[in-house]
Amino acid sequence: MTVSKRKQDFPILFQQVNDEPLVYLDNAASTHVPTPVINDLVTYTQTSHANVHRGVHTLAERATSQYEAARETVRAFIDASSVKEVLFTRGTTTGLNWVARSLGELVVEPGDKIVISRMEHHSNIVPWQELAKRKQAELIYIDLTEDGELDMADAKEKIVSGVKIVSIAHASNVLGVVNPVKDLAKLAHEVGAVMVVDGAQSTPHMTVSVQELDCDFYAFSGHKMCAPTGIGVLYGKQTWLENMSPIEFGGEMIDFVYDDYSTWAELPYKFEAGTPNISGAIGLASAIKYLEEIGLDTITKHEQELVEYVLPKLLAIDGFELYGPRDASKHTGVIAFNIKGVHPHDLATALDMQGVAIRAGHHCAQPLLRYLAVHSTARASFYFYNTKEDADSLVESIIAAKEFFSDGFI
Amino acid sequence: MTVSKRKQDFPILFQQVNDEPLVYLDNAASTHVPTPVINDLVTYTQTSHANVHRGVHTLAERATSQYEAARETVRAFIDASSVKEVLFTRGTTTGLNWVARSLGELVVEPGDKIVISRMEHHSNIVPWQELAKRKQAELIYIDLTEDGELDMADAKEKIVSGVKIVSIAHASNVLGVVNPVKDLAKLAHEVGAVMVVDGAQSTPHMTVSVQELDCDFYAFSGHKMCAPTGIGVLYGKQTWLENMSPIEFGGEMIDFVYDDYSTWAELPYKFEAGTPNISGAIGLASAIKYLEEIGLDTITKHEQELVEYVLPKLLAIDGFELYGPRDASKHTGVIAFNIKGVHPHDLATALDMQGVAIRAGHHCAQPLLRYLAVHSTARASFYFYNTKEDADSLVESIIAAKEFFSDGFI
Repeated sequence: MTVSKRKQDFPILFQQVNDEPLVYLDNAASTHVPTPVINDLVTYTQTSHANVHRGVHTLAERATSQYEAARETVRAFIDASSVKEVLFTRGTTTGLNWVARSLGELVVEPGDKIVISRMEHHSNIVPWQELAKRKQAELIYIDLTEDGELDMADAKEKIVSGVKIVSIAHASNVLGVVNPVKDLAKLAHEVGAVMVVDGAQSTPHMTVSVQELDCDFYAFSGHKMCAPTGIGVLYGKQTWLENMSPIEFGGEMIDFVYDDYSTWAELPYKFEAGTPNISGAIGLASAIKYLEEIGLDTITKHEQELVEYVLPKLLAIDGFELYGPRDASKHTGVIAFNIKGVHPHDLATALDMQGVAIRAGHHCAQPLLRYLAVHSTARASFYFYNTKEDADSLVESIIAAKEFFSDGFI
Repeated sequence: MTVSKRKQDFPILFQQVNDEPLVYLDNAASTHVPTPVINDLVTYTQTSHANVHRGVHTLAERATSQYEAARETVRAFIDASSVKEVLFTRGTTTGLNWVARSLGELVVEPGDKIVISRMEHHSNIVPWQELAKRKQAELIYIDLTEDGELDMADAKEKIVSGVKIVSIAHASNVLGVVNPVKDLAKLAHEVGAVMVVDGAQSTPHMTVSVQELDCDFYAFSGHKMCAPTGIGVLYGKQTWLENMSPIEFGGEMIDFVYDDYSTWAELPYKFEAGTPNISGAIGLASAIKYLEEIGLDTITKHEQELVEYVLPKLLAIDGFELYGPRDASKHTGVIAFNIKGVHPHDLATALDMQGVAIRAGHHCAQPLLRYLAVHSTARASFYFYNTKEDADSLVESIIAAKEFFSDGFI
């Protein structure tokens, strides 16, 4: 458990909340920024900031070089073949919206099908609903197994001729499962469909190679992997990006602007309208270096150990209902659950009183919760800086809350 | 000149560039972040970060409350009547694109007219070109006077029945003029058109009241007013925003998500898909407080004094060609110019060798430069932290560069 020594890099985690030491288990919503990344951001801001590209003065060149170096860091991190395939966005949601808007225009015709799954986040549902509406296309959901995994038999039945886009989360933000994206990409490509991946919950926790997965698009967010908010990445295969139209217009994404029309800059600039989030990109690159220093495989292993440690203890609590696989080896650090007879919001509040931060609600996955026939759930989510002691606090605080509520308060 | 004492809050300005003290005159491209704002960002990151909205734990509530307080700070800053009218964006470009995309769908029909001006930034041209193309509408440019001001007689001739949208910069990023937005809004409203304002170059430098201007939309960026990159604001009148469709989908912008359709959250959340740039919003609010402490009117006055001081000195340089009004009282801190016989890129490089950072190029305003019959210009742009000494350095470095180039190097 040497990884969790990294906790020292996160001053925010060493505070009292409601007179109890904070135990932060809401990492699937947002992670924290370690001191080395904060330091890099402050250094950039205090020594090298300027607007990027086209500037000939020293600060502009320095900022541009750091911004483009950040792109190369991202490229290597996800194993893209070229920096032309790495677009900086505001986050996963923006990335998925860009694909739905621009790729949708290119490949979807009336009567075509778009395939997603029952476990998608709203950001990987609603853009496709809107595309389907614009194009009179059909939106189809792959169902889940009883254990909360993607039903691959159903996937095979639904990814057929006429399907133009398949868009699936690499890891679920509720069920804590990792989906077989590589197999899905193969199925998609066999029927001539484009494979889009929501990587928001995977990229922070595991080694990702977009070439190995052979997906066409891959979107993720910085703020779920130790970078600041407001920065994300959309990876897209160069051939697709070359053929797609930009979604936002203005600033440096143009080549020439005439009175009535304009021509676009080369990739990746074609898609980056306006002044980009320069410090965000630099912060993301710094966060990637920080995670790589720990090792993504080490992070996966640590979270796996925590889940193997805590899941049996949680399942032993009377009235504990898990959503997702009971097999810890199939589980990421995301654990969605309910305690029989206790509303998840009340539970989250009771845990907060004990310093334990979890989330409660629909987790931006209303169709999934409807499918699971539950209105809302509690969710604890671990990251590398969490410890076995944090896991113990979760278990103890749930037991204490349960006793509190069963003592006649509800 | 007490305002420029604030320079002490910007460590980046106290460095040597090419062995000369840095003189930063590229503020129209991007400004710097003062230490108090950096400190606020670090404090937020190290004490209060979490994802906003719906979270019931303490950090989530704290982050939400700071994020929404930032919205209220922005509301008061631009004198909007409700926080429902304040949308956080990635920057001005995103804001203008959202309006062109969503308002465009709502109000523009084939044959309609969209009016902009010859002095617009690409971000206030290309989104309208694309809208005009989608809707078979006509894009019309208001011409300029010989002095580089908006030709209001021409505006009156062009803002007529059939015009659905008028979109104009409040202040030019090249000519250094402030446009009579209030008068334009009146003209627009008289013919039933919607008034959109690109506030990127005005908001950082002057008191802005969207109610007083009576514009329908107003977009601006944080990074041009001492906030970090990646955050901006789109103001829109509530009645318009209520009727407009969101542009990005997913996350917390929904109310209910069903299999085939979704319903939207209330304003302003309807337009804020995905995890917002929380720290960016908090940084922007901190920057606003910093600017308000100095006083926006004081900033205007200081920049005015600098221009009155430097413009005659510049105009006295043999071969100095100014683009925009020669009357300093009509001028913002933006001065675009050329030196006869010296390419602006060479000039900018020569100035950089002397530590003076200016920009050279088309300033994302190709149609304007074509109108002015010039391929590119140099541009110096002042902010409140600039001093008379900075202005002197500009003049001296231009004279030195001119001598250098006239000594047979070109």
